[in-house]
Amino acid sequence: MNLSNAKQKELELTELDLKLSNVAHIGHASINVTNLERSTWFFTEVLGLHVSAEEKDKVYLRAWQDWDHHTLVLNQSEKSGLDHFGWRVNSEKSLYAFEKSLRESGTEYEWIEGGTELGQGDAIKFHSPAGIPVELYWEMEKYSNPLTASKLPSHPMKYTGKGAAPRRFDHVNVMVNDVANEQEWWTNFLGIHHRYYIQNEADVRLGSWLSKTNIAHEIALMRNSNQSGALLHHVAYFLDSPDELLRALNIMAENDIKIEWGPGKHGTSGAQFLYAFEPSGNRVELWTGGMLIFAPDWEPIEWQSGTGQFGLDMWGSTPPKSYLTYGTEIKK
Amino acid sequence: MNLSNAKQKELELTELDLKLSNVAHIGHASINVTNLERSTWFFTEVLGLHVSAEEKDKVYLRAWQDWDHHTLVLNQSEKSGLDHFGWRVNSEKSLYAFEKSLRESGTEYEWIEGGTELGQGDAIKFHSPAGIPVELYWEMEKYSNPLTASKLPSHPMKYTGKGAAPRRFDHVNVMVNDVANEQEWWTNFLGIHHRYYIQNEADVRLGSWLSKTNIAHEIALMRNSNQSGALLHHVAYFLDSPDELLRALNIMAENDIKIEWGPGKHGTSGAQFLYAFEPSGNRVELWTGGMLIFAPDWEPIEWQSGTGQFGLDMWGSTPPKSYLTYGTEIKK
Amino acid sequence: MNLSNAKQKELELTELDLKLSNVAHIGHASINVTNLERSTWFFTEVLGLHVSAEEKDKVYLRAWQDWDHHTLVLNQSEKSGLDHFGWRVNSEKSLYAFEKSLRESGTEYEWIEGGTELGQGDAIKFHSPAGIPVELYWEMEKYSNPLTASKLPSHPMKYTGKGAAPRRFDHVNVMVNDVANEQEWWTNFLGIHHRYYIQNEADVRLGSWLSKTNIAHEIALMRNSNQSGALLHHVAYFLDSPDELLRALNIMAENDIKIEWGPGKHGTSGAQFLYAFEPSGNRVELWTGGMLIFAPDWEPIEWQSGTGQFGLDMWGSTPPKSYLTYGTEIKK
Amino acid sequence: MNLSNAKQKELELTELDLKLSNVAHIGHASINVTNLERSTWFFTEVLGLHVSAEEKDKVYLRAWQDWDHHTLVLNQSEKSGLDHFGWRVNSEKSLYAFEKSLRESGTEYEWIEGGTELGQGDAIKFHSPAGIPVELYWEMEKYSNPLTASKLPSHPMKYTGKGAAPRRFDHVNVMVNDVANEQEWWTNFLGIHHRYYIQNEADVRLGSWLSKTNIAHEIALMRNSNQSGALLHHVAYFLDSPDELLRALNIMAENDIKIEWGPGKHGTSGAQFLYAFEPSGNRVELWTGGMLIFAPDWEPIEWQSGTGQFGLDMWGSTPPKSYLTYGTEIKK
Repeated sequence: MNLSNAKQKELELTELDLKLSNVAHIGHASINVTNLERSTWFFTEVLGLHVSAEEKDKVYLRAWQDWDHHTLVLNQSEKSGLDHFGWRVNSEKSLYAFEKSLRESGTEYEWIEGGTELGQGDAIKFHSPAGIPVELYWEMEKYSNPLTASKLPSHPMKYTGKGAAPRRFDHVNVMVNDVANEQEWWTNFLGIHHRYYIQNEADVRLGSWLSKTNIAHEIALMRNSNQSGALLHHVAYFLDSPDELLRALNIMAENDIKIEWGPGKHGTSGAQFLYAFEPSGNRVELWTGGMLIFAPDWEPIEWQSGTGQFGLDMWGSTPPKSYLTYGTEIKK
Repeated sequence: MNLSNAKQKELELTELDLKLSNVAHIGHASINVTNLERSTWFFTEVLGLHVSAEEKDKVYLRAWQDWDHHTLVLNQSEKSGLDHFGWRVNSEKSLYAFEKSLRESGTEYEWIEGGTELGQGDAIKFHSPAGIPVELYWEMEKYSNPLTASKLPSHPMKYTGKGAAPRRFDHVNVMVNDVANEQEWWTNFLGIHHRYYIQNEADVRLGSWLSKTNIAHEIALMRNSNQSGALLHHVAYFLDSPDELLRALNIMAENDIKIEWGPGKHGTSGAQFLYAFEPSGNRVELWTGGMLIFAPDWEPIEWQSGTGQFGLDMWGSTPPKSYLTYGTEIKK
Repeated sequence: MNLSNAKQKELELTELDLKLSNVAHIGHASINVTNLERSTWFFTEVLGLHVSAEEKDKVYLRAWQDWDHHTLVLNQSEKSGLDHFGWRVNSEKSLYAFEKSLRESGTEYEWIEGGTELGQGDAIKFHSPAGIPVELYWEMEKYSNPLTASKLPSHPMKYTGKGAAPRRFDHVNVMVNDVANEQEWWTNFLGIHHRYYIQNEADVRLGSWLSKTNIAHEIALMRNSNQSGALLHHVAYFLDSPDELLRALNIMAENDIKIEWGPGKHGTSGAQFLYAFEPSGNRVELWTGGMLIFAPDWEPIEWQSGTGQFGLDMWGSTPPKSYLTYGTEIKK
Repeated sequence: MNLSNAKQKELELTELDLKLSNVAHIGHASINVTNLERSTWFFTEVLGLHVSAEEKDKVYLRAWQDWDHHTLVLNQSEKSGLDHFGWRVNSEKSLYAFEKSLRESGTEYEWIEGGTELGQGDAIKFHSPAGIPVELYWEMEKYSNPLTASKLPSHPMKYTGKGAAPRRFDHVNVMVNDVANEQEWWTNFLGIHHRYYIQNEADVRLGSWLSKTNIAHEIALMRNSNQSGALLHHVAYFLDSPDELLRALNIMAENDIKIEWGPGKHGTSGAQFLYAFEPSGNRVELWTGGMLIFAPDWEPIEWQSGTGQFGLDMWGSTPPKSYLTYGTEIKK
């Protein structure tokens, strides 16, 4: 898409269109892996995601009930880490409304032509203040494949139960130097609601969790205690029960997957978790349960130093040091 | 609140306010019971809800993680059934915008003064085409009680695990004569999205499920096969796991609660369910799991005659006849 | 093994040996299938058992934590049903002690030479009064295969979680004309303890459940309401949780497996169940939970007409008619 | 009971009686608590056990499906720890057979008169080589109480689901200086089978797990790394599912119970666990799942230094130091 065309569309935006423009939900993560073959093995055989397409140096994946073409992209790369997060907007006009806001705020952005990422229409790409690469898009193909089709219309494919078999993509997490500042941008510029946060004794923000939808968070921002800039902390998929979480641990144990932390239960969201490293070194979370948030005037919950520990693990285990310091590179 | 005051506020509504006005989510059900004592016993001791307030002939209840003052009201009454459903709007202005729409569409409505229902601010009450009583409100007190407080800021009260102990209020279900017509009103007038539906061989709509939030449905409309008008079918609370569902069945079996159907799994939503009758005869559902819906352009899923059976129970059990015909009275 | 050799061994049996001779536990079922290919598909891909060996017209299977060479044998046959049940005795001498008892009681029996059934040593084969074919054996190879080996010494093979993935073989069930008479033989002759039973209003025994080990039952005897003789009712494998039971139902639903009854919970044992038909028509149960029995002086629990329904399904669903009448042939 | 009477009975023991005499299963633990009120609160309100009787300074408890009068005794005491373990023998004659063996082996013992411990008949009390106090008994009252009775004959009382609500007593664990020596005595003198063990690099036995029944272990012996003698490590109750284990953790977290380790999964038994401290300082385990052992010729599984870590927690978490060193006093 050429820019003038975009501009033209933009000109048709009414004041109302601008007010109604919004992000709908996080759609996918595109991550870099140093060993595409081993990482693909992990995500398909151990985690139980499904390949929806493959290109040279690229594999598109989704969980069994993800309706979209993909929710994870693996890119063969020199360094493991994040390529970008994709967020879907709530209408085509929203895309152009966001472009207008970006231009007016002097933020650098570029158009990514439809089809560059398989299944995805035109997208605007830009970076958050902390340097997190974001793509906004409206069009995304639905997954459909006669070879894997279920008789159940609510199943975009047959449920097979292979591997950990998460139901759906859930959220992403990045480490940044200044959580409070970054959170404000996500809330003010992109409209992602602030749900809960942890402060330390010195009132420094250690983490903030945000969502546009009713799930507890779609993106988390955690303080990089080394203050070495933005790092990908993890991508997370959702399981249906505590039981499936423990089953996933069993499968990982048999496959020599390094489990970093868990099972535990985040007091903040109430979700049970495990963290593991995929073969290229990116951290992956599986989680289940926890709260949904419905209140339109939700006040972010503060977890202070006295309760923060239970915010991390309600049952009282402490995160390993790596959890607070290790992340993979975020591509400039 | 007097009407003129309301009107005055209404006059300040801009075009934009009207466009942005919306229902936020279903908030509670107010139901009638012929035996308040026994019904209260059921909802607290067996189901494990918690009393947040009591008035003469009225008990206010909530699940342990419901943030609002209440999500269920029991009213001692001559006949069991529905008093009304309460839906929260997404801003104060929305309340008046809906009043304007009601007046302009010639729909009868009345203002229910704040405090008439404990914890709730001013509300507009009106009926759907099929006669379902609806209240819209903006203000609702949050639950807070030092005697039951948890150290965990994410818990509005301590989790005790008593009874079935559902996490939260989930949805309601009514039987109506003409599902398609009623669904269109809920979608067009109140903006509640149509999520999935079942048609029979003659293309008659047997059921429609709708939600404003990301949960699979907040209200369901099912065809009254006797064509005897609108009836309350059930109110539903959400459990965290299949395991908790079976635990609930065990507790019910020990307490001689009549289980009508289940455990089963709705193919439509993917949620596991049980249906039981509380002592005054209203049907109650406990359910768990299933899908969330994130797509802003979700197309309602059609379950046709060939697949409809699996829509009701994916594992193939058929509903008892009572499930398709029995409901409790809806108060005019 | 020739008979004289057996006799010779028998002669060495002391009185004490005879007293100490006992059945140890049920070891396996050998069943007949009309479609070996489809039945093998079901047991491996859907149920998630593992092939330990194949012969012409024969497949040997086991669950992932079954320590023995096999716990199920599928035999290609003209008619589906039972070939025999294998029970392991508690010592080599016990085998000859049972031979002595058989001979002294005038019961027909034959020796099955070691290796006839892969992994199994010499066995004595005979029939119960109702005509159930039983093999007693002492020697059984342990399963071991470097290709599937786990790093965990407690896992005879890697846990993969494929299919329903039961942990272990659990029990068998047959229909007979006269339950009380048959039960007495199993208890008196083979020493299998009587655990619980259901009587109807006329005090006719409808079912008896027996075990030698601490599990609730290893063999069940249910009344054939058609009084048409002994039939195989089902073989059962054990799952680790209610959650895994529902997961199994999901996998079966996707694979068009006919689920006959369940999920439900037997009040008798407290175990949750599902019954399904494998492609050749034999009934298979998956179950989980329930009680163990430790008391050396356990009195069989009686379920009378008033409680019998809850004995079948504690949550109140009634078995389909097929459950009470349908079985597959028992080979003479 | 006077001793001569016992002797007299003993004289009637045949050689066969002696051979057939056996321990049946572990029946209960009698533990000392410094704060009977708070410990009783913990075991009833948090753990969800039920009081079957109270005496001055003594509370008798059982899980909802424990058939016996009690499976745990709390004794108000100066120091927390173990009073004794009660094991039931498999017949009355066995009791006298064990007395004979004790006398012949020169082991000190005493008779505890029936009724001294409520519900229990005459018992012989003695100490293992490491100093663990053991009582053997034959008679034990069944629990029965019309006030708590269930309509289900398989439930010795109604299932209420209150607290963690374990199904049954499971096992005990003690620390001793010399595990190998102690294990041999339990196996050779009491006939408790050796099931699995952990050796360190220097081939020192770090732990041994033993059972007479089919459960993975009824008593565990772990090396006291301080070599300060025998200590009570923990008593354990059994839950029905991983889900119930996590629910128990939630209830403990809300009640400020110190969780020492878990949730985790012992690779050895395959059971999921949590360890917590009751208010008087005794360690308690809740666990679920894992293997049963049926083979009459079971070979104890060795977990060596390379796999031992996974034996402790299959998912890779390491026990806190306290787990390897802390125990409560064993009464001389």
